[in-house]
Amino acid sequence: MRAAVLHGVGKILLEDRPRPEPGPREVLVQVTSVGTCGSDVHYYEHGRIGDFVVRSPLVLGHEPAGIVVQAGPGADGHRTGQRVSVEPGVPDFTCAQCRAGRYNLCPRMRFFGTPPIDGAFTEYVAVHEEFAHPVPDAVSDDAAALMEPLSVGVWACRKARVGPGTRVLVTGAGPIGLLCLQAARAFGATEVMVTDVNPARLARARELGATAILDARAESLADAAFEPDVLLECSGHPAATADAVRAVARAGRVVLVGMGGDEIPLPLAALQTRELEVTGTFRYANTWPAAIALAAAGRVELDALVTGHFGLDRVEDALTAGTRDPELVKAVVRPQE
Amino acid sequence: MRAAVLHGVGKILLEDRPRPEPGPREVLVQVTSVGTCGSDVHYYEHGRIGDFVVRSPLVLGHEPAGIVVQAGPGADGHRTGQRVSVEPGVPDFTCAQCRAGRYNLCPRMRFFGTPPIDGAFTEYVAVHEEFAHPVPDAVSDDAAALMEPLSVGVWACRKARVGPGTRVLVTGAGPIGLLCLQAARAFGATEVMVTDVNPARLARARELGATAILDARAESLADAAFEPDVLLECSGHPAATADAVRAVARAGRVVLVGMGGDEIPLPLAALQTRELEVTGTFRYANTWPAAIALAAAGRVELDALVTGHFGLDRVEDALTAGTRDPELVKAVVRPQE
Amino acid sequence: MRAAVLHGVGKILLEDRPRPEPGPREVLVQVTSVGTCGSDVHYYEHGRIGDFVVRSPLVLGHEPAGIVVQAGPGADGHRTGQRVSVEPGVPDFTCAQCRAGRYNLCPRMRFFGTPPIDGAFTEYVAVHEEFAHPVPDAVSDDAAALMEPLSVGVWACRKARVGPGTRVLVTGAGPIGLLCLQAARAFGATEVMVTDVNPARLARARELGATAILDARAESLADAAFEPDVLLECSGHPAATADAVRAVARAGRVVLVGMGGDEIPLPLAALQTRELEVTGTFRYANTWPAAIALAAAGRVELDALVTGHFGLDRVEDALTAGTRDPELVKAVVRPQE
Amino acid sequence: MRAAVLHGVGKILLEDRPRPEPGPREVLVQVTSVGTCGSDVHYYEHGRIGDFVVRSPLVLGHEPAGIVVQAGPGADGHRTGQRVSVEPGVPDFTCAQCRAGRYNLCPRMRFFGTPPIDGAFTEYVAVHEEFAHPVPDAVSDDAAALMEPLSVGVWACRKARVGPGTRVLVTGAGPIGLLCLQAARAFGATEVMVTDVNPARLARARELGATAILDARAESLADAAFEPDVLLECSGHPAATADAVRAVARAGRVVLVGMGGDEIPLPLAALQTRELEVTGTFRYANTWPAAIALAAAGRVELDALVTGHFGLDRVEDALTAGTRDPELVKAVVRPQE
Repeated sequence: MRAAVLHGVGKILLEDRPRPEPGPREVLVQVTSVGTCGSDVHYYEHGRIGDFVVRSPLVLGHEPAGIVVQAGPGADGHRTGQRVSVEPGVPDFTCAQCRAGRYNLCPRMRFFGTPPIDGAFTEYVAVHEEFAHPVPDAVSDDAAALMEPLSVGVWACRKARVGPGTRVLVTGAGPIGLLCLQAARAFGATEVMVTDVNPARLARARELGATAILDARAESLADAAFEPDVLLECSGHPAATADAVRAVARAGRVVLVGMGGDEIPLPLAALQTRELEVTGTFRYANTWPAAIALAAAGRVELDALVTGHFGLDRVEDALTAGTRDPELVKAVVRPQE
Repeated sequence: MRAAVLHGVGKILLEDRPRPEPGPREVLVQVTSVGTCGSDVHYYEHGRIGDFVVRSPLVLGHEPAGIVVQAGPGADGHRTGQRVSVEPGVPDFTCAQCRAGRYNLCPRMRFFGTPPIDGAFTEYVAVHEEFAHPVPDAVSDDAAALMEPLSVGVWACRKARVGPGTRVLVTGAGPIGLLCLQAARAFGATEVMVTDVNPARLARARELGATAILDARAESLADAAFEPDVLLECSGHPAATADAVRAVARAGRVVLVGMGGDEIPLPLAALQTRELEVTGTFRYANTWPAAIALAAAGRVELDALVTGHFGLDRVEDALTAGTRDPELVKAVVRPQE
Repeated sequence: MRAAVLHGVGKILLEDRPRPEPGPREVLVQVTSVGTCGSDVHYYEHGRIGDFVVRSPLVLGHEPAGIVVQAGPGADGHRTGQRVSVEPGVPDFTCAQCRAGRYNLCPRMRFFGTPPIDGAFTEYVAVHEEFAHPVPDAVSDDAAALMEPLSVGVWACRKARVGPGTRVLVTGAGPIGLLCLQAARAFGATEVMVTDVNPARLARARELGATAILDARAESLADAAFEPDVLLECSGHPAATADAVRAVARAGRVVLVGMGGDEIPLPLAALQTRELEVTGTFRYANTWPAAIALAAAGRVELDALVTGHFGLDRVEDALTAGTRDPELVKAVVRPQE
Repeated sequence: MRAAVLHGVGKILLEDRPRPEPGPREVLVQVTSVGTCGSDVHYYEHGRIGDFVVRSPLVLGHEPAGIVVQAGPGADGHRTGQRVSVEPGVPDFTCAQCRAGRYNLCPRMRFFGTPPIDGAFTEYVAVHEEFAHPVPDAVSDDAAALMEPLSVGVWACRKARVGPGTRVLVTGAGPIGLLCLQAARAFGATEVMVTDVNPARLARARELGATAILDARAESLADAAFEPDVLLECSGHPAATADAVRAVARAGRVVLVGMGGDEIPLPLAALQTRELEVTGTFRYANTWPAAIALAAAGRVELDALVTGHFGLDRVEDALTAGTRDPELVKAVVRPQE
């Protein structure tokens, strides 16, 4: 099978590799759509993300959807031909974190497209059958791929306890911000403000249901008459984060989704006198069923986020599309095309 | 002002009464719409509900909306003319339950239309300013009145921790069941089954978003391939409740909303081997802002539930409408007409 | 190795069996102490518990402690000679319940001494290495065995959210009741009332820290001036349960630990007007580290509960000791003696 | 009556003032013991704490205990002579924060000894009857006064969800740190490490139940083999806080109790990859009953913290005792002596 392999900063080569053999309780998935993510771009441009360093050739891509074509030993949960969305991080299942239901914090997590685990910019992937989640016909291949970033939004909203009546501020209108926005609405929020510095992104936030938008170059949050109960921080800018935290209402929740910077300077008085709760998210756990249900019911719009398709031979184009097109939201790779 | 006063079982007289003077921190509200509720009907027909006995003439009605026309001493939160939905149970604010945020469990609660506190089938009511919740123009007078039963649904969904991905079963498609259905959808549920024995009610449940309906006379829950995470019990039938509890999935939540019967025979093995959580609701606390936000955003349909309007001189007709019209959902009294 | 095997109602034979070979990630444990439990007695006397029927020869015993003597493939978490308390129910680790942290609800749970899985009234058992929990020297072999019933108490207290200031009622002063009492105290409760009909058990409850006791034959809970926030029901008597539920304070929690009867008649008005939460426990999840910490720190007394020791050839005596000695609390089997 | 009145930085005068008349639902309390707190010292030395500025003469002191000597209109919850611990912050009871059970976040809170509300370094204070909490004989006057700082510890442990098995790190062994330590143990924690730079304080931490201590001048947390689930930060040092946060285990909770510095630089990667939860505390809510129960049951030691007594004429000595005696923990003012 063909695979797009990262061989160093800025260098992806299309190679032939043996098709993986599904191991015990694994299924083999023929990949139909794979979303590209900022972390793929970051590995491509920098060869590392923090402590994760690409030391040998690596297949990127961790947002795959596809079709089950073969079952490994003991994997009897799917029929061949089942369309699935692949949850790309498989834990060891047995450690203390896993046993407590926090498998995203498993220290032995194997995550697609993260050194040294190969990802999904290829024709076939093998994955534990429980992490190949069936999708109904109402969910397209692209939408099935986008369950991964939608899961980030679902997880953030769970951490933030978003529900009807919760006023939500989303800082940053990139793909994750737009999915946090949509997730917040799906959790019942009726007031969601989105901020960014890119007018095209803000316009898209409006289209996707933001009830207010704020261009951070022109206006200050402090001047906006909006006091959120929840901040879903998707910009990754430490200073912007601190400003946004200052806007949060008493007993509010802050979820740091965006990455960027080593330290964030949190305003102590705000944390204490308003008893704010601040947490960060690391991927997600147990989100796929809810994400699929929302997509199938039309409560979120995923296909609308896809602004470009690329074959396996054009993965580099997919990863650099954002630098050429400021209106790009989400590029999808289609390995079978 | 005129008031419809219950003088005994089946006997309501229209009387002239002095307009109330708003006390400290109270506002006077000119009542525009008042929903009728099963408990109003029950007091009218039986003169009591459990330990609450009507011993002297009583004004019923606890779902009022109206317009603020006067402010008592220290009540400065509203402007005259403000349209409001009235939360009808005012606690003492200072007891241990109130201080813990559970004001609905306040032992000194004063609740509209519950002996010996007069209710809202009248032209004016006085209420604590914090319990006169402003409503925007997008919310009609009738909808403002229906914030009370919607709050029952919001409260049930909070207790049950309904969110995206939660499969919900609502037993009973009366007004409360229909509002629990709508609340569950607004909390993110994409699969909601409603059961009843009345086909007209089931049809209405479909219109309001039930993804499955079940006529309990024709089918058994045990045969339906639906395993809910949450049961919102709105029928008040002990045997039906026990059957529905048996259908609930592992780690599921059961919220007993409907009243009826002294004891419910809960299946111990189901409670234990699936670790079900069972609780009941007693009114609601801190639900109005969320309920109003949902109505204003069009996430719930309240006006569609109103199937009849009655003047203050026809309160008896309003309370007996259900016996004449099997398709009645909600009768509303309009004291100013 | 020798094993005490149940061959039918009232018939346990000592047999030679092959020593188990530890499988992947399993360790072999030489059993030093095994607690006997009411369910062992029930299988011995009736051959079944509900749907669990003993159809072929079965080794009972699910409260083992011992010493790691051999490691299976991939099991590298222990050194040989490590003293351990064995958690006797190993789930499949990968199903939806397990992934959510509720491995006790795993439908493929394999539980020691429950048909058709053999238990620990034998010299050696093999168990997943993560379920062989190391114990420090401060914890005796018998105490290590009693981590299992202590876990029941810890789990009940977690479900009930017991903490400082929580008033707790424990109904039933058998081993589980006495451990719920001790667990409640360890969680910070300073007021714990225990009820029973056996004066010897009530006296022991006093010794173990109950701040009040009530002989249910002589006094009624309704007369006792004690309004618990939490009821830990350990008697398994449906009628006594209903009475105890009626005593619980507003917003109280009821945890049904004791088994007995098919249905419990719950008082609906109490559940609703006080918004009680009722749940049952099914074994436990993630309790061993806390249980071991409490025992090692001397916060609970386990050795004091052991009122008799028996060799492997006297398992029947151990299981019938309760019928001869009304003051028996816990009989322990010592397979190496 | 006499009162110790702050007239400017470093200037407290003993004055005669009229005895307060208890208002509606208030009781008059004859003050027996008042703890001194770091914030009293701060106002005395600086005339302000953040935005709270002493602009007119102010009575400090917010940790009073005493005896009810008179009841205002409608205050019928106490008998004259009842010994009480006074909760020093009375909210408005009716705002959205109060109705949600978060009365400590009430924007109209009136807090003793905080400008412009007079405190308790005087002979009599009036307070809402629900905030004059009865104490049993087992609790001394000094201990009754120390319910206030103990409440800080109880609140921190609730926020941090401390229970059996939770490993706790307390940074800072001043009075609040020592009470957080004791509270953590009372909540069931069996492993509590305390850090400080003062050996005398560390020694006292040991005496009060710390299972490990660390002198931050000599050792680094990174070197200590202790991975806490919970950090109760009581030092108020931003850099030390960031270091301590880095030590916290996956899914750990950080509660910022100590004040100091405008911003704390939180390590983003730790917050995200371990999904730490960070919050601050602002006083407490609903803690007195639990605090009193713990003290009455001997689960915490309060009298041992009192290292000096002072009459009303020696309030300045009480507030400056810490500068003269490095081993001072808590100075208590006795207005009747």
